[in-house]
Amino acid sequence: MSDVLELARDLIRRRSVTPEDAGCLPLIGERLEHAGFRVEHLRYGEVDNLWVTHGDNGPTLIFLGHTDVVPSGPEAAWQSPPFEPTIRDGRLYGRGAADMKGSVAAMTVALEQFVAVHPDHRGRVGLLLTSDEEGPTNLDGVRRVVEHLREGGERIDWCVVGEPSSKERLGDLIRVGRRGSLSGTLVVRGVQGHVAYPGKALNPIHAFAPALAELTAERWDEGNADFPPTSFQVSNLNAGTGANNVIPGELVALINFRYCTASRADDLRARTEAILQRHGLDFALDWNLSGEPFLTPPGGVLRETVVAVCRELCGIDPEQSTGGGTSDGRFIAPLGAEVVELGPVNATIHKVDECVDVTALEQLPALYRAMCERLLG
Amino acid sequence: MSDVLELARDLIRRRSVTPEDAGCLPLIGERLEHAGFRVEHLRYGEVDNLWVTHGDNGPTLIFLGHTDVVPSGPEAAWQSPPFEPTIRDGRLYGRGAADMKGSVAAMTVALEQFVAVHPDHRGRVGLLLTSDEEGPTNLDGVRRVVEHLREGGERIDWCVVGEPSSKERLGDLIRVGRRGSLSGTLVVRGVQGHVAYPGKALNPIHAFAPALAELTAERWDEGNADFPPTSFQVSNLNAGTGANNVIPGELVALINFRYCTASRADDLRARTEAILQRHGLDFALDWNLSGEPFLTPPGGVLRETVVAVCRELCGIDPEQSTGGGTSDGRFIAPLGAEVVELGPVNATIHKVDECVDVTALEQLPALYRAMCERLLG
Repeated sequence: MSDVLELARDLIRRRSVTPEDAGCLPLIGERLEHAGFRVEHLRYGEVDNLWVTHGDNGPTLIFLGHTDVVPSGPEAAWQSPPFEPTIRDGRLYGRGAADMKGSVAAMTVALEQFVAVHPDHRGRVGLLLTSDEEGPTNLDGVRRVVEHLREGGERIDWCVVGEPSSKERLGDLIRVGRRGSLSGTLVVRGVQGHVAYPGKALNPIHAFAPALAELTAERWDEGNADFPPTSFQVSNLNAGTGANNVIPGELVALINFRYCTASRADDLRARTEAILQRHGLDFALDWNLSGEPFLTPPGGVLRETVVAVCRELCGIDPEQSTGGGTSDGRFIAPLGAEVVELGPVNATIHKVDECVDVTALEQLPALYRAMCERLLG
Repeated sequence: MSDVLELARDLIRRRSVTPEDAGCLPLIGERLEHAGFRVEHLRYGEVDNLWVTHGDNGPTLIFLGHTDVVPSGPEAAWQSPPFEPTIRDGRLYGRGAADMKGSVAAMTVALEQFVAVHPDHRGRVGLLLTSDEEGPTNLDGVRRVVEHLREGGERIDWCVVGEPSSKERLGDLIRVGRRGSLSGTLVVRGVQGHVAYPGKALNPIHAFAPALAELTAERWDEGNADFPPTSFQVSNLNAGTGANNVIPGELVALINFRYCTASRADDLRARTEAILQRHGLDFALDWNLSGEPFLTPPGGVLRETVVAVCRELCGIDPEQSTGGGTSDGRFIAPLGAEVVELGPVNATIHKVDECVDVTALEQLPALYRAMCERLLG
């Protein structure tokens, strides 16, 4: 059995549902310490993080990943138990196989191989792992580690995120940026009353209706060469007492923008509030900016390197996308780093019977190692 | 202490929260049996009903009421315990004092007095009481009793409902009709998905938004001489999984029309569905017609009698209104009866410290008795 497959299986066996790490990070830390890396365990709140580097001055390339996984759901729904790694028909099954213990194993093995062959490489190479990427807030994961690095004056030039980016074959899609995510909790206030006396009440559903129609019809921007247009979604809308003879006194909506670099969060906030004000609503709106958009533009050293590696090792000209959700890359980009994401096929992530193709998994360390060699070798 | 005040206090002491009668109906049934009435106890499901008549052929006047009350809410919020009738500053306090144990006591006393003075009155006089008026469905209350009466070939000419109709002084407002109530449960179907991939989902909140704006802006009719315009309210609107990164797959809205005789329920249904269809929605809509509108037109014998009684005994020309919610009068009107509602001031009903003015309560039997005398004396 290959080194990367064995390590991926070891990691899958550990029930590291967010924020539990279940021993994944110590296992990797020991291996890389043994390989000559400096290892720092950073625990914030209930979250374990690992910061590992090799080399000193010069440009810094880091790999970024997470050891935590989403819950398995009912284990009986799986063909084989989610925390018992199982190989079937050329695929490795288990929770986290694709998102992203496979990538974490591949990064670890790639780093071991790289420093073994290039003990005196230029610059610095490193690995940053967290056990809080899948949770709701990610407050104590990479976000906190980056604060720590910033305080220490650390600089990162290039960051490769191992999130499962590929669509059908390893290397057919890389992410070169992500949209930002801006959420809001909107409370529209009315006056509760009896349905038979609407004149004595103010129905917040009715008051909100034309504003809602306008918000959902609004075209926020046209996107740009790198990003699709900003999208707006109302994910939750709740009003009512349950009784159908009572006009409710309040409506609560959760809204979310996935926004591109053609818009600024401040402008989206202001435009939303202007629409609500124009409709004369009595409202409160609490915003939460969970991630600003980032883009690694064409021509960047890392982006060109990753594209070249996919072409040469996978024989594919990868799609260079900025689609999808957010990733921990959003915390690294503000340090001034180029950020590119490359990992296995994401078709089964967060589902039952999550799996990764064994051949692709065994190819992945070579891809990551090739990036090290081209950038620091 | 007057007879009506004593009986009202006896009734308030009984915790007859819907559908419990707590002995109210047997107490009244025994009194009226003793006074020479025929008494029939009709129990349907968990609900007690009482049907009491005196006299034989000729026109029939009945009084209609209920012994059940709404819950008190936290008893500590009351100045005196809700089920301990208490007289303070000329008012009788207790749950049901105004809605409508005071009226029930007054009707009982009025009937006793009327048949004592007019044992051989013309026609028939009666009392119909239920213990299920305040509940959510009223399936086993007056609705069921009316089915029973209809099967028995019973005819009712005039019905006086004792619901608390007055605004500031006893007799300042009578109800001469009520709007209908048409409810619907609307389910708008979409396709659930991740907020980051709106193209792969269909947000039912967004799909519904323009239809909602149109429904709430619609003018359903202009009302008429007897009724205000039909009103439409969305009482409950719910969509969302709770998570703000998931586009929900479904939206549920509860809607309600309070409609006047200028519109028909069928037309309101059809117009609502046409708006939803025009917006291309995938929806299901279950309707529930809980009460058709009724109107006792000007010039009717009962309506003129009640107005005359208010003028002469209260010294007020009463407002003749069709406002407010529904009442059990909606079940009697389809029998061909004129229906008019007169009862005490409704300012405190369903609230803490519900009360009725003692002087008004003691005046009420005379009003009901005067109606008997004018119509059957």
